[in-house]
Amino acid sequence: MGYIDRIIDESETDFSAVKEQANKAGQLTTLKLDEYLLPGFIDLHVHAPQWPNAGVALDRPLNEWLDTYTFPLEAKYADVDFAKRVYDNLVTELVGNGTTTVLYFGTTHNQANLELAKACMNHNQRGFIGKVAMDNPDQTPDYYRDASAESAVADTETFIKQMMELNKTADIQQTPVITPRFVPSCTPASLKGLGRLARKYDLPVQSHCSESDWENGFALEHYHKRDAEVLDEYGLLTDKSVMAHGTLLNQSDLDTFKERGVAVAHCPISNVYFGNAVLPVSKLLKQNVKVGLGTDISGGYSPSLYQNIRQAVMSSRMLHDGVNSQLDPAQRGTENDAISARNGFYLATVGGAKSLHIKTGQIKAGYLADLQVVKSPMPSFNEETMDQIFEKIIYNASKDDVKQVFVQGRLAKG
Amino acid sequence: MGYIDRIIDESETDFSAVKEQANKAGQLTTLKLDEYLLPGFIDLHVHAPQWPNAGVALDRPLNEWLDTYTFPLEAKYADVDFAKRVYDNLVTELVGNGTTTVLYFGTTHNQANLELAKACMNHNQRGFIGKVAMDNPDQTPDYYRDASAESAVADTETFIKQMMELNKTADIQQTPVITPRFVPSCTPASLKGLGRLARKYDLPVQSHCSESDWENGFALEHYHKRDAEVLDEYGLLTDKSVMAHGTLLNQSDLDTFKERGVAVAHCPISNVYFGNAVLPVSKLLKQNVKVGLGTDISGGYSPSLYQNIRQAVMSSRMLHDGVNSQLDPAQRGTENDAISARNGFYLATVGGAKSLHIKTGQIKAGYLADLQVVKSPMPSFNEETMDQIFEKIIYNASKDDVKQVFVQGRLAKG
Ligand SMILES: [Zn+2]
Ligand SMILES: [Zn+2]
Repeated sequence: MGYIDRIIDESETDFSAVKEQANKAGQLTTLKLDEYLLPGFIDLHVHAPQWPNAGVALDRPLNEWLDTYTFPLEAKYADVDFAKRVYDNLVTELVGNGTTTVLYFGTTHNQANLELAKACMNHNQRGFIGKVAMDNPDQTPDYYRDASAESAVADTETFIKQMMELNKTADIQQTPVITPRFVPSCTPASLKGLGRLARKYDLPVQSHCSESDWENGFALEHYHKRDAEVLDEYGLLTDKSVMAHGTLLNQSDLDTFKERGVAVAHCPISNVYFGNAVLPVSKLLKQNVKVGLGTDISGGYSPSLYQNIRQAVMSSRMLHDGVNSQLDPAQRGTENDAISARNGFYLATVGGAKSLHIKTGQIKAGYLADLQVVKSPMPSFNEETMDQIFEKIIYNASKDDVKQVFVQGRLAKG
Repeated sequence: MGYIDRIIDESETDFSAVKEQANKAGQLTTLKLDEYLLPGFIDLHVHAPQWPNAGVALDRPLNEWLDTYTFPLEAKYADVDFAKRVYDNLVTELVGNGTTTVLYFGTTHNQANLELAKACMNHNQRGFIGKVAMDNPDQTPDYYRDASAESAVADTETFIKQMMELNKTADIQQTPVITPRFVPSCTPASLKGLGRLARKYDLPVQSHCSESDWENGFALEHYHKRDAEVLDEYGLLTDKSVMAHGTLLNQSDLDTFKERGVAVAHCPISNVYFGNAVLPVSKLLKQNVKVGLGTDISGGYSPSLYQNIRQAVMSSRMLHDGVNSQLDPAQRGTENDAISARNGFYLATVGGAKSLHIKTGQIKAGYLADLQVVKSPMPSFNEETMDQIFEKIIYNASKDDVKQVFVQGRLAKG
C-alpha cells in the first residue's frame, strides 16, 4: 500500500478500465491543463523548534543568533502545549510547500519531540526526528542542556523506544534519528554513546559538519582534528548519516564521506547567512558524494524547497563566476561548474531519497506515491516545451501553486 | 488628489470624525490584525516584452540567450494583439506583487509600447516606458532592428508625442523614457540623437551600463572608452538617468554617476545569471550614488521585488564573506559591508523614488498614496517586535500575501 503500482498510458488497452475503476472507487484525481505532477520533496534539514523565528535576526553573528534568539526559543519546548501549537503549524506549512519527507532536529525534550512525530502522523508527512543531544557545559546555556553525557544518551534511547511504540499506530512510519547537535555542543562521552546507539539500533544519524569558519575551527582547536574526523572516530559517520552544510569540507573530508556513504544536506539559503562559503555541489556530485537539499529553518528563512533549489542554482553560479568585480574574470571565479534547475530538482528529490534510503523522489512503479500537483505559476503565451514549463515552475512556484500533496498515496494537502 | 493628506493618530481629537467621514464616503479601509501597510514598490528595470520568457533558459550564455530566446520574442510585438495580451497580464502580475511604479523597456514597436502604457492606465500602475532604440546592424538581428539611426530617433520622438496625447485622458500619468538598449546595439549617431531628445524634452533616460564582462568590454574595444564615458559623451548620463546593473562599474564611473546624479537599477537576481559579479551596494550608498531595485524580467526570473530584496541582501553577504572555501577567510571575502533587509527595502522604495524623482516610497503627508496592504506570511507564536514582523514579511511574503494595492489612492488590486 502507498506505492506506485504502475504508470499507464492512454494507448494501453486497459486504460479506460483502470480509469473507470479508480473513478468508481472515488480515487481518481484528474489534473487541470496547467497542472503538473511532480515527486514530493525531501527536506534534509529542519530545526522544527526554530519555526517561530524563521526570517528573524539573520544578520546577527552565529554566536549571538544562538544565544539571544535560538537557545531561548528551543528551551521553551519544555512546554508541551507550545510544542503542539508550533509543530502542528510547521508540518502543515512544509506539506503545503510540497515537502513529503523531512529530516528534523527536535529539541532536548522528548515529550515535545513526540508531539512533532504526532504532528507528522496527523498531517501525513514522513518524519525522521531527532532528540537533540547537547551536554557540553562550555558551549550550551545553563537553561538548555542535557544534564550529563549519560542522560543525553539515555534520553536518546528512551526516545527511540517511544517512537517504536508510537509507530505501532502510525500509517506512515516516523523514524527516530541519532542527533548530536554538533561537535562543539557535545562532550566526547556523549558523542561516543550516541555512536554506540547508532550501531545498536542501525538508525540514521544527523548533525552539522564544517558549517562555518567558527564551527570548522572548533574541532581543530579542541581536538586537533577535522570536524569530520571527530564524528568519524565516534562512529557517527555511517551510510545512514546526513551532515548539514559542509561548506568548509576539504578533499580529505569528502573522501571520508564518500567512503562511509555519508550524505550532505545542502542548505543554500542558510549558508549565505552562516556558512561563510558556498558548498561546491557540482564537485560533490562528480565525486559521487550523496547530496540532498535542506531549508535549515531557521538558519534559512524559507520553508520552501523551491526557494532553496533556486538559491542552490544561484549560489553555484556565484561560486563559478566569482563575486568581486575588482578582480579580473580569470581570478574572480573558480572551476566549480554551476548547477542547473534540473540538478537542483535532483537534490530535492532523488538526492534526498538516496540520503535517507527511501524509495521515493521519482514517479516510477515500485516507488512510494509521494507526489505533488503543481499549477504552473506563469502564464503561457506560446507553445512551450516541457523543459520550459519545468523551469518556470521551479523558478516561480510558491506555496499557493502546490494544489495537492500525497504521501504514500494519502492526501496530505488539498 | 492621490496624495497622502495626513497621518492621523487615535489620540487626536478629530480621529473619530475623520474615520466616520471616510466610512460614509465609502473610502474607509480597515486592516486586519495580521495585515500591515507598506509603501508600494518601485521596479526600476523591467523588459516588458520578455515576460513570456521569465524563468526560461537562464543558464545560457548572454549572446545565445539574446539571439535564441530574447530577440525573436521581442520581434513578435509587431503584432499588437500579442502585445495587448502579454502586457495586460504582466501589469496585473506586477501590481499583484505590490509594485506601484515601473520603469519599463518596451520594444522598437510604438504601437505595442502604447499598449503597454494603456495596460498601466487600465490597471492603475505608474509606468515609465521606453521605446527601445537599437540600430547597430553588427549587434542586432535583421528581423529586429531600427531601420537607421534617424528612424530610431524619429520613432522615439513620435512615441514621446503619442504618450503626451495619451496622458490627456490618463488619471495616472505615464512617462516616456529615452531608451538606447545599450552601447553595443546602438550606433554613435543614434546615441547622439537620443541624447539630444533627452535634453529637448527633459525626459528620463534608461539603458544598461557595465553589466557583464562582455558588455563592459564592448565599449573598451570599440570606443577605447569606458561604457559610462560613451553614454556620458552623448548626453545620456543625466540626473534623470537610470542605468541597469552596473556590476562592473569602477570608481571613476561611480564618480561620474555621483556627479551627474545617475541612478543604478540594481537587479540582484539577473546579475547572478548575466552580471558576472555582485554590485557593491553598500559602497554605492556610502558614496551617495542613487540605487534602486529592479526585477529585470526576464534576465531575472521573478516579478517580485520581495524576492529581489532577499537576493540583494544575500548577494551582498556573499560579496562580503566570499564564496570559495578553498581560500582562507582573510582572502575569501571583501571589505564591502553586507546590507540588511531594511536596506533592501529602502532600495525598493525610497531608492527607486529618488531615482525617478517622484514623491513616493514613504508613508508620509505630502507623498503619493502608493500603498500595499500585506498579510504577514508567517504565524506568530509569541509577542513580536515590529522589526521581527518586518523581517518575516520581507523574507517570506509572496504575491498572495499582498492583499490590496493602491496607486495615487486608487485601488489597483484587491
Ligand atoms: Zn542546522
Ligand atoms: Zn535589461
